[in-house]
Amino acid sequence: MIILIEEIFKEVLKEIKPSKTEMEKLKIKANEIIDKIWEVIKENNYPVLEVLLVGSSARNTNLKDDYDIDIFILFDKSTSEDELEEMGLNIGIETIKRLNGSYKINYASHPYVNGKVDEYEVDIVPCYKIDFGEKIISAVDRTPLHHKFLKDRLNEKLCDEVRLLKAFLKSLGLYGSDVKTKGFSGYLCELLILHYGSFINLLKDAQNWKIGKKIILKDIFEIYKDVDINKLKKFEEPFVVYDPVDLNRNVASPLSKENFCEFIFYAREFLKNPSIEFFKDYAKKLEKILEDREHGYRLILKIPREDVVDDIIYPQMEKLQKSINKAITKNEFVILDSKCFADEDYCYLYWEFLVHKLPRVALREGPPIFEKERAERFLKKYDKVFIKDCKLFAYTERKYYHIIDLFKDIVNGNLQNISIPKYVNPRKGEIIEL
Amino acid sequence: MIILIEEIFKEVLKEIKPSKTEMEKLKIKANEIIDKIWEVIKENNYPVLEVLLVGSSARNTNLKDDYDIDIFILFDKSTSEDELEEMGLNIGIETIKRLNGSYKINYASHPYVNGKVDEYEVDIVPCYKIDFGEKIISAVDRTPLHHKFLKDRLNEKLCDEVRLLKAFLKSLGLYGSDVKTKGFSGYLCELLILHYGSFINLLKDAQNWKIGKKIILKDIFEIYKDVDINKLKKFEEPFVVYDPVDLNRNVASPLSKENFCEFIFYAREFLKNPSIEFFKDYAKKLEKILEDREHGYRLILKIPREDVVDDIIYPQMEKLQKSINKAITKNEFVILDSKCFADEDYCYLYWEFLVHKLPRVALREGPPIFEKERAERFLKKYDKVFIKDCKLFAYTERKYYHIIDLFKDIVNGNLQNISIPKYVNPRKGEIIEL
Repeated sequence: MIILIEEIFKEVLKEIKPSKTEMEKLKIKANEIIDKIWEVIKENNYPVLEVLLVGSSARNTNLKDDYDIDIFILFDKSTSEDELEEMGLNIGIETIKRLNGSYKINYASHPYVNGKVDEYEVDIVPCYKIDFGEKIISAVDRTPLHHKFLKDRLNEKLCDEVRLLKAFLKSLGLYGSDVKTKGFSGYLCELLILHYGSFINLLKDAQNWKIGKKIILKDIFEIYKDVDINKLKKFEEPFVVYDPVDLNRNVASPLSKENFCEFIFYAREFLKNPSIEFFKDYAKKLEKILEDREHGYRLILKIPREDVVDDIIYPQMEKLQKSINKAITKNEFVILDSKCFADEDYCYLYWEFLVHKLPRVALREGPPIFEKERAERFLKKYDKVFIKDCKLFAYTERKYYHIIDLFKDIVNGNLQNISIPKYVNPRKGEIIEL
Repeated sequence: MIILIEEIFKEVLKEIKPSKTEMEKLKIKANEIIDKIWEVIKENNYPVLEVLLVGSSARNTNLKDDYDIDIFILFDKSTSEDELEEMGLNIGIETIKRLNGSYKINYASHPYVNGKVDEYEVDIVPCYKIDFGEKIISAVDRTPLHHKFLKDRLNEKLCDEVRLLKAFLKSLGLYGSDVKTKGFSGYLCELLILHYGSFINLLKDAQNWKIGKKIILKDIFEIYKDVDINKLKKFEEPFVVYDPVDLNRNVASPLSKENFCEFIFYAREFLKNPSIEFFKDYAKKLEKILEDREHGYRLILKIPREDVVDDIIYPQMEKLQKSINKAITKNEFVILDSKCFADEDYCYLYWEFLVHKLPRVALREGPPIFEKERAERFLKKYDKVFIKDCKLFAYTERKYYHIIDLFKDIVNGNLQNISIPKYVNPRKGEIIEL
């Protein structure tokens, strides 16, 4: 079995690991950009202490066909935030221009330049240079430390193990700490491999993880003297991996409970029955198997998408869907499945129903007959009242007999308590029956 | 308000109280029967100590048009049970014959004669003569003591109060301790009036009754010296009225929790809004109001009735319906209302559904993913498995899409775990859609 698994990993790496040529080309390009950055810095006499290539491509943990180049510009801490922002943007814009690239401004904790140079996606991000244990000023200040921490510790073998983990997660739809995916960040993958020594060891342990699993890298005890495990910050998240760069931060905090469970489950499934299939769009294959069945009544609420990023659209879609789900349940329809997704132009909120039609009559449950005042109020409200299980009940007429009438009222704005997120307005929605 | 209520009671009594003529006629007939009974006893030299007219007609607590005459023949305790049975039947049969009546044999704790003499329904029941505090031999031995206890204590005013209570309960469908009604026995009504002094006082107190309400008549302390309240037998029933004739017996034990609650509720409703309507088939009027509405899908399972009494048929119908309700719920259909009733020829089990049709797909909930062994078994059983809320779920196909298919399998005998009571066999059933 071990041999078989090793064979699988070899096979996977063949497919996912960038070629030497690909890596060399990327490094050459990165150095060229860094040279240009220093040119601009020197011309302007900016207080920059360091320019650092970071991210997975800098650490050899990237997957094939990953053309991301992340460069951080480390300023002296005496620089004001306004200055840092202004100088950072200036460096970025000027550099990309000199390389004949195109660029746009993105926002993390502050604006930064995202440029396109040849086939490469280049982020040029200004930050403060801080040291281990020092308080950060801007949220991105940790990134250079993350890089330094990993660079010192990951050897070539471990880098390949990181790639296997990333490929496994990607295939399962669990790779990415964005709010849409709610999965594992690249940095989290690297820390996990560092902790477990190999992908297979990680899987073997993950099989038995429970909600609340905590990981404290042994390096933490080297970096910080006198760390008291019992005094570490407590996190409520299902999976906790203390950031060696900042012990008050849980690297796994973006991971949802659902995805944590999926990882545990598929770790077990893979070990039980190892196969290269787990690395090849496994989530899509599972989805196909799940959907190859008879369905209940289905509909989609299709809403034009405003021009905002996924990180904003997805939480809003989810919030809207949650509020609609509440209304559906309150009206006694039964949901079998609900999910949402967005493409460039539209948001799609999808439902499948176990119960989508109901008789006109509805049953309201009232208070126990012993609670006189509540009973009195119930009697004032309803006329067809009877007693069951020592409680009052009433027959009444329901508002919605068919789920589509409820959705029509959502679109018309006639349904109360539906959230109207800023960028996903249900009143602009169109109902599509499948 | 008090005046109004008194007016209502007067009005009710006018309608429900037997006329003097009716009562006199009944007493004359009863005495005639008792004379004949003594004739037979003496001819046979039977060890009878007493012949006693009992029941509500003997105590003036009966309602109008009640032609029941209950006569108990009290034997000496030295008589064997076989002898008592034989002599009792002989007396009964011989008496009815001499009065040119017809008769049949009924069964309580032992057989007794039920005769028809003119318009009267005559029960002639043999029993042992026992005293207060003595252990009974046959279950019916308590009846003469009940009679003696009440006869000594009920005056004309109280008798009318008993009649009001009986009329109120009858109108609400709560009068009768048979297993079909599960309501208040006549004896229970009499004890309650004795305890509260009047119908209105009973209602006023009943408004605030809770589950577990206990009533200990003050007479009990006169009859039994040194009664310790804390040492009285504990009963689990919702309403407890200690029988003054036997402190180990709860007179209210046949009363169901549902009916106890209904009494409390309608006591309150009557006091809030006193009206003669409460005494006039109120339950039927309520039923009519409740049923004057749109309905969900309805069906009836009509089963030929075997020749057995209600006291046997009703518990069997209820047991069968309960087991079918379980199957309905297990198959994810949703019941809005279910009840059963029987006429002379058929049993009718009735259902109304909130959900009677479902899509082919069904969702099975499995174990939490953390429970490896259970998860393994679930995975072996199903193929379309996914994770939600840290649990395994599977899509599968349901057996019944329409409730009628489930009922067809009940009638065909193809559904497991349906109880097959001796006298209500669902396999002889016919499904009727309404």
